[in-house]
Amino acid sequence: MYGAIEAGGTKFVCAIGNENLEIIEQVSFPTTTPKGKWRNYNFLDTLKSYFNVPIALTTDVNAAAYGEYVKGYEKKISNIVYFTIGTGIGGGGILNGELIEGFSHPEMGHMKVVPHPKDSYKGNCPFHGNCLEGMAAGPAIEKRNGVKGQDLSEEDSFWEIEAYYIAQCMYNTTLMLSPDVIVLGGGVMQQDHLVKKVRNQFKHMLKEYVQIPKINHYIVTPKLGQRSGIIGGLALAEKALYNARESIH
Amino acid sequence: MYGAIEAGGTKFVCAIGNENLEIIEQVSFPTTTPKGKWRNYNFLDTLKSYFNVPIALTTDVNAAAYGEYVKGYEKKISNIVYFTIGTGIGGGGILNGELIEGFSHPEMGHMKVVPHPKDSYKGNCPFHGNCLEGMAAGPAIEKRNGVKGQDLSEEDSFWEIEAYYIAQCMYNTTLMLSPDVIVLGGGVMQQDHLVKKVRNQFKHMLKEYVQIPKINHYIVTPKLGQRSGIIGGLALAEKALYNARESIH
Repeated sequence: MYGAIEAGGTKFVCAIGNENLEIIEQVSFPTTTPKGKWRNYNFLDTLKSYFNVPIALTTDVNAAAYGEYVKGYEKKISNIVYFTIGTGIGGGGILNGELIEGFSHPEMGHMKVVPHPKDSYKGNCPFHGNCLEGMAAGPAIEKRNGVKGQDLSEEDSFWEIEAYYIAQCMYNTTLMLSPDVIVLGGGVMQQDHLVKKVRNQFKHMLKEYVQIPKINHYIVTPKLGQRSGIIGGLALAEKALYNARESIH
Repeated sequence: MYGAIEAGGTKFVCAIGNENLEIIEQVSFPTTTPKGKWRNYNFLDTLKSYFNVPIALTTDVNAAAYGEYVKGYEKKISNIVYFTIGTGIGGGGILNGELIEGFSHPEMGHMKVVPHPKDSYKGNCPFHGNCLEGMAAGPAIEKRNGVKGQDLSEEDSFWEIEAYYIAQCMYNTTLMLSPDVIVLGGGVMQQDHLVKKVRNQFKHMLKEYVQIPKINHYIVTPKLGQRSGIIGGLALAEKALYNARESIH
């Protein structure tokens, strides 16, 4: 059996899964204590002091990317990038079976974006102002429109502006990593119409400069729905166990 | 002994190297036949029909990245991205020892960039107009200034505009891949002052959002000078031989 904890700003999800990475039991509880108070908390060593088992620790989007990678597709894929577009924007990915990690985990959500000609919003990222997160995350949608994205009509012209920013992210990701699939998760993407708008704008930007996989199989929403992260956590636990056994032999 | 061919638009460089990847002999000759006429030429199968040895084929920037990765640093690095800023702009990289390759080789040179507030140039990329290559490659420099970059004074204010675009590329690359080092090669980067301007603008953009390695060791010019590509070719030949032997055992 494997265990996984998905620690979010709103809630913690804890699950136990079997050897097929199927969830056997799951509980969630509100985080309550402000998210900021977890800063610098030594999660890993605390867990290690309670459980004498191999443990892996990574970002939410890395876990979600890994979940989609391991359990989202019947046919094995080699490369995947997962973005969450919600309260913030984050990205994580797998290349040739390994998480994309250099001197740091990726911070893809803060990439540069070209302002939409009809958008005068200056962005609300406290670090970079008008980076992708500053322009396209949930709070930036609400700031411009006075209502949350979920309360904005599907026909509202703002969605083309939103799609324009996300499409730039798809474009840069394609040219940098050319993954087999790019997954768009998170609260904002629960607007069904949005992924189609993103695909259209992305194709318009790319100008067929590189030959991408079929668009409906290339830019997609999560196959595992909202469980990508927690199932990814179980899959990472399995990998940690495998690595620990390998290092013994 | 290993052999390498670097096929460029201006010249072909051919080299033979020893087991330490040191060049024993090298010749180069002008390409003459227009670059475009090589399109769809089956380089790999033609070589295979002459030489019964393992052969690897990749892009110029992938080879240069691999050369810098294998021979550029005394202390082993895990991740590297190499950009050439010249007639065009291209990028290639190594993550955990493997070339970054998905459904395609990367086309990082065509990433989106935010126009500089003082730059009214619309860009000359035939595909994307004002992408990085369309704004910052050699021909775009010449178009704006009436002279080639090499004939433009170090004090010319244009260089800050040029650095602004390249810095955006460094910024996006950092947030997507966080490599140990980013190498800036190609003709335009032979302006010694430019890499410093890029570093300064990059730091200004990043706002210390992620903690990067020391800047002078992070954004660098090629350690192997203009030989990164051809030495990378020799290193890829060594790797092809190694892989071929592994697959026999």
